[in-house]
Amino acid sequence: MYKCSKERMEDKIKTMAQYGDAGHGGVTRYTLSPEDAMAREEFIKRMKAIGATITSDDMANMYATLKGSDPTLPAIVMASHSDSVKNGGNYDGILGVMSAMEVLEAIADQKIPHKHNITAMIWTNEEGSLYPPAMMSSGVICYDYLPDDIRKNFVHKNMLVSKSVLDRETSFGEVLDKSPYKGDKANRLNQKDYAAMFELHIEQGPILEAAKNDIGVVTCVLGMVNYRIRAFGQSDHAGTTPMPYRQDALYAASQALQYLHTELDKLPSDLVYTTGEILCHPNVHTVIPDMVDFSIDARHEDPKVIAKVVEIIKSIPKELAKCRMESEVAWTRDTVYFDKKLVDYVQESVDELGYSNQKINSGAGHDAQFASYMMPSTMIFVPSKAGHSHCEQEFTSVEQCTKGADVLLNAVLKYDENN
Amino acid sequence: MYKCSKERMEDKIKTMAQYGDAGHGGVTRYTLSPEDAMAREEFIKRMKAIGATITSDDMANMYATLKGSDPTLPAIVMASHSDSVKNGGNYDGILGVMSAMEVLEAIADQKIPHKHNITAMIWTNEEGSLYPPAMMSSGVICYDYLPDDIRKNFVHKNMLVSKSVLDRETSFGEVLDKSPYKGDKANRLNQKDYAAMFELHIEQGPILEAAKNDIGVVTCVLGMVNYRIRAFGQSDHAGTTPMPYRQDALYAASQALQYLHTELDKLPSDLVYTTGEILCHPNVHTVIPDMVDFSIDARHEDPKVIAKVVEIIKSIPKELAKCRMESEVAWTRDTVYFDKKLVDYVQESVDELGYSNQKINSGAGHDAQFASYMMPSTMIFVPSKAGHSHCEQEFTSVEQCTKGADVLLNAVLKYDENN
Repeated sequence: MYKCSKERMEDKIKTMAQYGDAGHGGVTRYTLSPEDAMAREEFIKRMKAIGATITSDDMANMYATLKGSDPTLPAIVMASHSDSVKNGGNYDGILGVMSAMEVLEAIADQKIPHKHNITAMIWTNEEGSLYPPAMMSSGVICYDYLPDDIRKNFVHKNMLVSKSVLDRETSFGEVLDKSPYKGDKANRLNQKDYAAMFELHIEQGPILEAAKNDIGVVTCVLGMVNYRIRAFGQSDHAGTTPMPYRQDALYAASQALQYLHTELDKLPSDLVYTTGEILCHPNVHTVIPDMVDFSIDARHEDPKVIAKVVEIIKSIPKELAKCRMESEVAWTRDTVYFDKKLVDYVQESVDELGYSNQKINSGAGHDAQFASYMMPSTMIFVPSKAGHSHCEQEFTSVEQCTKGADVLLNAVLKYDENN
Repeated sequence: MYKCSKERMEDKIKTMAQYGDAGHGGVTRYTLSPEDAMAREEFIKRMKAIGATITSDDMANMYATLKGSDPTLPAIVMASHSDSVKNGGNYDGILGVMSAMEVLEAIADQKIPHKHNITAMIWTNEEGSLYPPAMMSSGVICYDYLPDDIRKNFVHKNMLVSKSVLDRETSFGEVLDKSPYKGDKANRLNQKDYAAMFELHIEQGPILEAAKNDIGVVTCVLGMVNYRIRAFGQSDHAGTTPMPYRQDALYAASQALQYLHTELDKLPSDLVYTTGEILCHPNVHTVIPDMVDFSIDARHEDPKVIAKVVEIIKSIPKELAKCRMESEVAWTRDTVYFDKKLVDYVQESVDELGYSNQKINSGAGHDAQFASYMMPSTMIFVPSKAGHSHCEQEFTSVEQCTKGADVLLNAVLKYDENN
């Protein structure tokens, strides 16, 4: 089995962590920002140093390719993203890029023979932090999810969106047009020139750590539903409206939220659901709220469980605390199963390396999920300390990161050997 | 008994409703905005037409005074405000100004003799819609509540404030400095030149309408407490964090909100309490909230009831849904009782006019409440249809508005006669 370099991995982690350092152990590195440019320049510098060819496409996705011995074969691609959420960690996304770089560096350093071209790739705007939606580029390129024209902002259609989104002065399209990383559409990932995709990522949950496993062999991305629940009341003065006259939309929403917890907790315990966003109108301490809108996101592998979630959402009483209640689906996705052959290459590699591991599913969405609509794809997870992610505490040890890169290296080489 | 003119009152209501027309029956007329300037110009035009003297002070409060027969006596002042909340109604504040104008117009038209100077006054920035806090000018001038220097913004000290406040490009002080209505500090309302204050206002609640009474003889402004309740959890990924690992601050906050309703509903039924504002961090549908902060405002005449409210707030469990809970007082005010002699003048006037009436307290704060720290003050309420206020549906009939002005006129004349 081939191995990667822990020292080289550590150097990359420390270097990338400087680009967008948010001061509490993590980074804020929005896509195509000056901080993201620093990370991309680091990518270019290190990949050029090992003789890789650098290209980019019209979504500013970047590709660093080491030539294989057989120019007739399509490439194997390893991809993740360099952007982060606000006050995010040093591993989400960028670890997949660093592992891909490390694999190419190991191949170059150890002169490991390979037939196929092997490519390390950066996806643009996976997080969608400033420019929704998440996974924008893979959505545009690999899946019939987004229109090609990204000149305009993508803002989801709910009637209220967070101010930070609306207050942006530039659209993604404008930022992209100005970016030096915007290249030719002909350079896009495609089914002719690329044969398979691998993505290494942190788990972003506590399962591997709790099971003391170093590697998660990912089999699927969970199906999900996302609904908006709304309560409509009457806006009146806090000081002058006797309690029996009130139609308090926040009180109604909190009853709906309690109801959802009570009912959803009766479903299988591996269901995850989240009420992460709440908007209240007019949101003034001296005014009874007349409209509250909150999100519910629920994920499970089994579509029958998801159907039960929808049933529960729809069973929210039509009236709570004298307020009219409604629910509306925002979006859904079916469970996406990764390519069986690629999953097997990952499993064989980790077993041969002797690293502790388990099969796992991904509750989070990833670019590999959209990529899988275009070509065989799969993912490798490494542990997240205490399960934390999308926050500055996010942590995976250098040893664990390097073991992940080892698995990626050997899985890619297995693909290379057998195809 | 003297009477006001329904036709003149209706004309004023229709005219003022144009200034800031928000398109759904109400107005958005922020203090010192172009729309507010139109209302102030109308005030100046109509008051000059009856021979009143116009002045303004350094807070841009405006005064229109009809000379009395005895120049040695201090003035009687009738005051309210011309600014509104966003999408507010045609009556909150401006009706008190229009009634004061109407009283002076009736006195001038009917040549009603009076010893004291009688003044109609506009308070600046009662709502505090763009520039918190509410009742800013009366706070500065009448009460030891606000510093004299209003050059800087007043933004309450909670760690998160609504974006609309923070996004302002100018401070109140800058707007004030540019305003043509800013006058001399020597013109301020003061204890030497002014003897008593009356404020007519809409009830902003449903009590008068439900009792079929045209007039509320206001006796006090309710005491209140305002607290912030906060839940601190852990921000993690919505898709990857099993339910037992979660510390969901929004779930914890909704439990606290339910607890408050359950416990506070055991207190006297005339207590009013409101959870009007909620802030959630990071407020993203795919992230478990790590901080939720909501307001609770509670009002009652009896300080013993308010003390029980505080006891209940402090009894919120220190931990809910594995989140740390805390509460912090934002502000309090004691019940403010209006001047007994003035209240009696109002009561005698309404009884002599034969209008249906009742004693009532004010759940809302008003400039008259701060004025009462400087001089004898009182208020007169007229009904609010369905109790609605701070919204475009706000409505009081012309007949009810005119009856209110009649009461104001006769109460002012009673003061004039007996002092």
